[in-house]
Amino acid sequence: MDEFQFHEGRLFCEQIPAADLAARFGTPLYVYSQATFVAHYERIVAAFAPVEPLICYSIKSCPNVHLCRLLAERGSGFDVVSGGELYRALQAGADPRKIVFAGVGKTDAEVVEALRAGIGLFNIESRSELGVMEELLAQLDRRAEGALRVNPDVDAGTHHYTTTGRKETKFGVDIDQAVEVFEQHRGARRLRLCGIHLHIGSPVFDVAAYARGIERGVALIDDLRRRGFELDTIDIGGGFGAHYRGAESPPAAEYAAAVLPALRSRGLRVILEPGRAIAGNAGIILTRVVHVKQSGTKRFVIVDASMNELIRPALYDAYHFVWPVEAGVLTPPHRRPEQPFDGLQPADVVGPVCESGDFLARARLLPEVRRGDLLAVFTAGAYAMSMASQYNSRPRAAEVLVDRADARLIRRRETYSDLVAAERV
Amino acid sequence: MDEFQFHEGRLFCEQIPAADLAARFGTPLYVYSQATFVAHYERIVAAFAPVEPLICYSIKSCPNVHLCRLLAERGSGFDVVSGGELYRALQAGADPRKIVFAGVGKTDAEVVEALRAGIGLFNIESRSELGVMEELLAQLDRRAEGALRVNPDVDAGTHHYTTTGRKETKFGVDIDQAVEVFEQHRGARRLRLCGIHLHIGSPVFDVAAYARGIERGVALIDDLRRRGFELDTIDIGGGFGAHYRGAESPPAAEYAAAVLPALRSRGLRVILEPGRAIAGNAGIILTRVVHVKQSGTKRFVIVDASMNELIRPALYDAYHFVWPVEAGVLTPPHRRPEQPFDGLQPADVVGPVCESGDFLARARLLPEVRRGDLLAVFTAGAYAMSMASQYNSRPRAAEVLVDRADARLIRRRETYSDLVAAERV
Repeated sequence: MDEFQFHEGRLFCEQIPAADLAARFGTPLYVYSQATFVAHYERIVAAFAPVEPLICYSIKSCPNVHLCRLLAERGSGFDVVSGGELYRALQAGADPRKIVFAGVGKTDAEVVEALRAGIGLFNIESRSELGVMEELLAQLDRRAEGALRVNPDVDAGTHHYTTTGRKETKFGVDIDQAVEVFEQHRGARRLRLCGIHLHIGSPVFDVAAYARGIERGVALIDDLRRRGFELDTIDIGGGFGAHYRGAESPPAAEYAAAVLPALRSRGLRVILEPGRAIAGNAGIILTRVVHVKQSGTKRFVIVDASMNELIRPALYDAYHFVWPVEAGVLTPPHRRPEQPFDGLQPADVVGPVCESGDFLARARLLPEVRRGDLLAVFTAGAYAMSMASQYNSRPRAAEVLVDRADARLIRRRETYSDLVAAERV
Repeated sequence: MDEFQFHEGRLFCEQIPAADLAARFGTPLYVYSQATFVAHYERIVAAFAPVEPLICYSIKSCPNVHLCRLLAERGSGFDVVSGGELYRALQAGADPRKIVFAGVGKTDAEVVEALRAGIGLFNIESRSELGVMEELLAQLDRRAEGALRVNPDVDAGTHHYTTTGRKETKFGVDIDQAVEVFEQHRGARRLRLCGIHLHIGSPVFDVAAYARGIERGVALIDDLRRRGFELDTIDIGGGFGAHYRGAESPPAAEYAAAVLPALRSRGLRVILEPGRAIAGNAGIILTRVVHVKQSGTKRFVIVDASMNELIRPALYDAYHFVWPVEAGVLTPPHRRPEQPFDGLQPADVVGPVCESGDFLARARLLPEVRRGDLLAVFTAGAYAMSMASQYNSRPRAAEVLVDRADARLIRRRETYSDLVAAERV
């Protein structure tokens, strides 16, 4: 699962007590386990080994350069959705040919940056973008490869903000329009449409939905090949789940087993874009209790982490397991809301930001906690720091990477001076 | 109203065409009108003049130091909710005695910073905080003044994430507990509880709800005075609305008329904390159309602004008027969704971020727009830049302040290098 486990009542990240990390680096603090992060990547590589896939880590899930470098060193490619993510991938030492660039609103400047970097593949999201790509390639006198993003119209059962593979989203092209788009592009000389790209949403816990989407994609490729298009690539996207409540996300091997037969028989180059499945359970947030207050019948545990550090509860009503770091005999056997202990009391775990929407957990059964206690917010490796803001002029938290008994700062805590640095004009 | 108006079919900020600002500073771009920002402040000063209030600008609404300085120069105080906001206020040249510090989770370090700066008032949000204040004051051998934040249990009709004055929120103390809290604090020597603080939510468009809240607060002060407490201060908070759809927010004079009688007769020092009412309509976002695409029956206008620049639509389902900057004969007579023109077509205005939740407007009737066109997102002065993130590794946008025919950069556009600056460790 992951390397954030309780030993004798104390939470550890690998070999280091979480409390020691908080004492050394302060709170709120993002803590990542290198072993977990790398193991998740390697498990996906192994599961899909029969098709020798190109794994393109989805930088948006957790973009720290030091984490990206761990993957680049192991041969990973990168899925980028902006010029900034391209910059991060290159800083991490990525092989440009292993970079795929997706996104519905790539600016001309970003496309030019990517072309100059020599990236491997553009995921194309609209007819308008196809036309612009041809123009820009002509201006630069270059060629490039693209995959058309196709919406397979599969319901992945995700939050409506992160369901992306239905018809009539801003993403890609509806599957019943795909042949027409390929036909319109048939004479184009500079952008070779070499494949299709699928992404049905995130996080997806339903292997069957994945398989259905890919079956539809493969059927489309068969159809396009019959029409004389030379396709050699399928990018099956990302969106694999993480373990928010326990082991609710199927292992990579199950995804692989469900989709490999269709992929192997076509002789396709397979690209995967995992992000959450690698980073999600590889990180936690450590936060300290500032005040505990009773307001009418409600108990509020006010901590020093907030929607700045983790906006998923406010934005998606997302669940993250929260528990005291020094749990003693109340060591939780799993990360679901219900725990097998007497005497737990409901509490809202909230941050210092001046919004009622600033909460990390609501109506959660928790042990008694006191001012000064440390809490851990689990499964906070993905879409936590990457979405962080400085709302209420709160400097962003530090990030620490743990490798067995070593911990090193991989992003320093911001200062007040950082808040206004760009305003010194 | 504000200085973002169409002249001969073109949008201006004060005397400068919006298109010129986009050409000069790039997009996406926050544009502020100095005249509007200052006029909103002065209108509140004038409306409440009979009680000579201390206006404490709510920094969280729009924290740019250059904007804060405009108010500090005019004698304004500041409402801060973090050490970072205190830093900003001091950078802007604020008089520390005119700073009030609110927030449910002030850390000890932040309280000490504020004490050392000699701020005027702490808004106290819990019993736990009262105890901690006494301890910290004893350690520093100092004294300070505080106002107890009281929830008057008034429904302000705001979004549940920004309704703050009901019972059982994380904020303040329920009004029926207030006497008990004062009694418990009676013997305390270092923090003088000199008043109460009210804040019922944001944005509030209902003057009567405001008046009800303040009546309850004043009745509490009467009660506390009868019990021998010496109260001289009432902080009536902020939360006044802005004009999102037109002139739907009552003018400051109406708020003042509704609450002044109760305040004048008590001889109280009155503190106000407007933020949105000053900044909201003093800013817009300029954004350029990257692609227009038809997806099934839906039209998507993909622009270069996103939930990074304005998360309010995704987070609160908030409405912001959006219209082409070069409107020609389709100059909108107001900012409501329905417009008196034939031939408008519904569109979703969406950003480049890889989330379905990344939208600025949905199912909005708009004129035809083309790639390269400029759009303005109105009433984006408050809770826009202040909540900005770099999600998808997108550098944050620049801010420009317009004063008649002059425009100056007050926050430079971030670079890719800025994204990873804190990771160079």
